[in-house]
Amino acid sequence: MTKMIEYAEAVPEVREVYDDIMRTRKTDYINNLWKVLANHPALLRRTWEQTRDIMGGPGVLDPLTRELIYLAVSVSNSCEYCTATHTAAARTKGMSEEMLGEVMTIIALASGNNRLANGYRVEIDERYQ
Amino acid sequence: MTKMIEYAEAVPEVREVYDDIMRTRKTDYINNLWKVLANHPALLRRTWEQTRDIMGGPGVLDPLTRELIYLAVSVSNSCEYCTATHTAAARTKGMSEEMLGEVMTIIALASGNNRLANGYRVEIDERYQ
Amino acid sequence: MTKMIEYAEAVPEVREVYDDIMRTRKTDYINNLWKVLANHPALLRRTWEQTRDIMGGPGVLDPLTRELIYLAVSVSNSCEYCTATHTAAARTKGMSEEMLGEVMTIIALASGNNRLANGYRVEIDERYQ
Amino acid sequence: MTKMIEYAEAVPEVREVYDDIMRTRKTDYINNLWKVLANHPALLRRTWEQTRDIMGGPGVLDPLTRELIYLAVSVSNSCEYCTATHTAAARTKGMSEEMLGEVMTIIALASGNNRLANGYRVEIDERYQ
Amino acid sequence: MTKMIEYAEAVPEVREVYDDIMRTRKTDYINNLWKVLANHPALLRRTWEQTRDIMGGPGVLDPLTRELIYLAVSVSNSCEYCTATHTAAARTKGMSEEMLGEVMTIIALASGNNRLANGYRVEIDERYQ
Amino acid sequence: MTKMIEYAEAVPEVREVYDDIMRTRKTDYINNLWKVLANHPALLRRTWEQTRDIMGGPGVLDPLTRELIYLAVSVSNSCEYCTATHTAAARTKGMSEEMLGEVMTIIALASGNNRLANGYRVEIDERYQ
Repeated sequence: MTKMIEYAEAVPEVREVYDDIMRTRKTDYINNLWKVLANHPALLRRTWEQTRDIMGGPGVLDPLTRELIYLAVSVSNSCEYCTATHTAAARTKGMSEEMLGEVMTIIALASGNNRLANGYRVEIDERYQ
Repeated sequence: MTKMIEYAEAVPEVREVYDDIMRTRKTDYINNLWKVLANHPALLRRTWEQTRDIMGGPGVLDPLTRELIYLAVSVSNSCEYCTATHTAAARTKGMSEEMLGEVMTIIALASGNNRLANGYRVEIDERYQ
Repeated sequence: MTKMIEYAEAVPEVREVYDDIMRTRKTDYINNLWKVLANHPALLRRTWEQTRDIMGGPGVLDPLTRELIYLAVSVSNSCEYCTATHTAAARTKGMSEEMLGEVMTIIALASGNNRLANGYRVEIDERYQ
Repeated sequence: MTKMIEYAEAVPEVREVYDDIMRTRKTDYINNLWKVLANHPALLRRTWEQTRDIMGGPGVLDPLTRELIYLAVSVSNSCEYCTATHTAAARTKGMSEEMLGEVMTIIALASGNNRLANGYRVEIDERYQ
Repeated sequence: MTKMIEYAEAVPEVREVYDDIMRTRKTDYINNLWKVLANHPALLRRTWEQTRDIMGGPGVLDPLTRELIYLAVSVSNSCEYCTATHTAAARTKGMSEEMLGEVMTIIALASGNNRLANGYRVEIDERYQ
Repeated sequence: MTKMIEYAEAVPEVREVYDDIMRTRKTDYINNLWKVLANHPALLRRTWEQTRDIMGGPGVLDPLTRELIYLAVSVSNSCEYCTATHTAAARTKGMSEEMLGEVMTIIALASGNNRLANGYRVEIDERYQ
C-alpha cells in the first residue's frame, strides 16, 4: 500500500494544501486519501482544489444534493473508500437515515432499469433523441 | 432487436399497465422501454410499479433530486437510453441547463476520485469505518 | 472504425481461422468481430480458439446455460455488440422469449442488490467468508 | 458502517419480513444484508420480496441456473458481498467446484471479448440488429 | 441531445477556450465534446485545461504512453466517444496497428483476470499488501 | 473463500503450471491467484499461459508499458487484487513513484471525461467515425 505522508514530513507544496484543507473544513484532521495523494503533490493539489470548489463552491445545487449525487456515483463505481467518506459527509450536511434509504432505493432501481434498457437494446424514442 | 408491443396487440395484463402509465403520467405516449418489457408482462408490471412508486411516490427527497440521482447512476452505468430519457424527465421536473452542468461536473469529479481511491488502495479512515 | 478484413484479402493465418470458424459453426458467414480482430492475427486466433473451446467444448454446463451466463456478463459490461450477438446465439441454442425475460429479470435484480450491498457496505457474514 | 437491526429490536414491519425470510429459507439465520436494509423497512420488504419471488418462485429457468446468472452479474459488478453469498447459495443448490470453474471461465472470456468489441467499436452485423 | 455551441455564437469565456484549443492543437477544428461542454463554460474550461496539461504537459511518461493508458480506461468504462477520439489521438502520436492490437490484447486479458480475482475472492498476498 | 492449493497437494497438471511459473518468474513463490485457480486446472493453465505470453512474450510494447495498461484496466474494473499485484509488478519493471502518480492522474482524468461524453451523449465527430 502506498505510504501516507504526515504533515511533519511533508514538502512545502503538500503542507500548503494540507493547511487549506484544515482551514476550509475547520478541522485538524487530514483524510487518508489526501495523505496518499501527497506522494504526487500536483495530483494532491488538483484533486483537492477541484473537490473543494465543486462540492463547496457557489452553485445552483445545494451542498447536500451535491453529496447525494457524489455518493450515488461512488456506489455505482464500487468505490468503498468514497462510499464510506461521502456517506459521512452527507450526514454532516443533513442526510437523515431515511434519506439514505431513499438514495439507496433509487440507486438500486436505476441500476436494474439501466441493465434492462441495455440488455433488451431498447431504441431511444425519437422524442428523447 | 426485441419487438415492441403496441397497445392494440397487447394482452390484457399489459394493457392494464399501459393504462396506468398513461393515467399516472397524464399522457397518451408509452416509452419504448415499456413496449419492449411488455414481451414479459410480469417484468413490465414489476418495473413500472417500482419506478412509479420510487420516483413519484411519497418520500423525503423531492422529485427533482430523485431524478438527478437516477441520472447520475445511469451515466455511471453507461446506459444511453436511461441517460436520454431521464435527462428529459429531469428537465420536466425543473432541471435547468446550469443544473445539468453541475450534475455532470460532480459525476466527472466523483468518477475520477473514485479511481484514485481504488487505484492507490487508500485505507478507510478509522472514523469513517 | 477499424477496417474489416474479408476472406479474399486475408493473410493465410487469418484464413485458417476463418476456415475453422465456418467449419465449426457450419456456416459461410464470418461475424464482424472476427473480421475486425483479423487486423491482429494472433489476437484473432487466441480469441476464436478460446471462445470455441469454452462455449462449445466439453464441460459440465450445457451450451444454453453457458450462453445465458455470457449474455448476463455482456449486459453487465454494457457491450452492445456482444449483447446482440449472444442474444441471437442463445436463441439458436433454445432460449425462448420467456427465458430471456427471466434472464433480464435476474440481471436487473442482482444489479440492484449489488449496489445495495456495496452502498451500505454490508459486512460479509462470518459463515460466507 | 450502518447499524444491523436484530430481531429483538426490530419494528413490527421488519419482524414480519424476518419471519418470512426464516420461514421461506427454513432457517433461523438472517443474513447481514437484510439486517442492514432493515434500517429502511420499505426497502427491506421490496428487496426481500423481489429476491424471494425471482430466485425461488415459479419460472422456466431452474433455481441453480438462476443462481449462476446472479453470480455472474455480481462478479461483473464487483460486489464482494453478493459474490460471497451467492457462491454459497449456488453450492447449496447443487453447484460443484467444477461448475464454479466453468462459470468463472465464461465470465472471464466474456469480459475480455466485451472489451474487444467495444475497444475496436465493432459494428453490429445486420443479421443481429 | 445537448446543443453544440459554435464559435460564432459562443460567449467570450467559451471563445477563449476554443482559441486555446486551436492554438494548442494547431488546428481550426473543435471536437464535438468541447462544443457540448460549452453549455457550461466553467466545466468546459476545467475539462480542457486539465486534459491539455495532463495529456500534453511535462511529465515522465511520453505522450503516446499517456494516450494508451487513456484509451485503456475509456474502453473499460464503455465510452464510445472517447474510444473513438483517443484511438485517433494515439495514432497521431505514433500508435501502429500492431500496437493497437497489443493494447486490446492486454485490456482483454486484464479484464478477464480482474473478474477471476474478484469472482474467486482471492486474498491479497501478504507481500503485496 | 475458495481453498488455495499448495504444491505438495497439487495434481500433476497443476504442478506443471506451478513449475513453469517459478521457472519463468525466477522465484519459488506462487501468487494466491494461481493457488485459487488451481481448483480448476484447465482455467489455471489457460490463464497462466496467456498472462505469461501477453505480458512477457515478444511484442512492440515494452514490458513496463504493458504493465501500466494492465494496471489502468484493473483500477477501472475495481479489482483490488490485480491493482495490488500489478502495482508491484510495474515497480519491479521500473515504475517510479512519479510514474505511478502520472498513471493515476490519467486514469482519473479519463474516467471523468468518459462520463462527460456519455452523460451529455456527445455524438462522435464524423472524422473520428
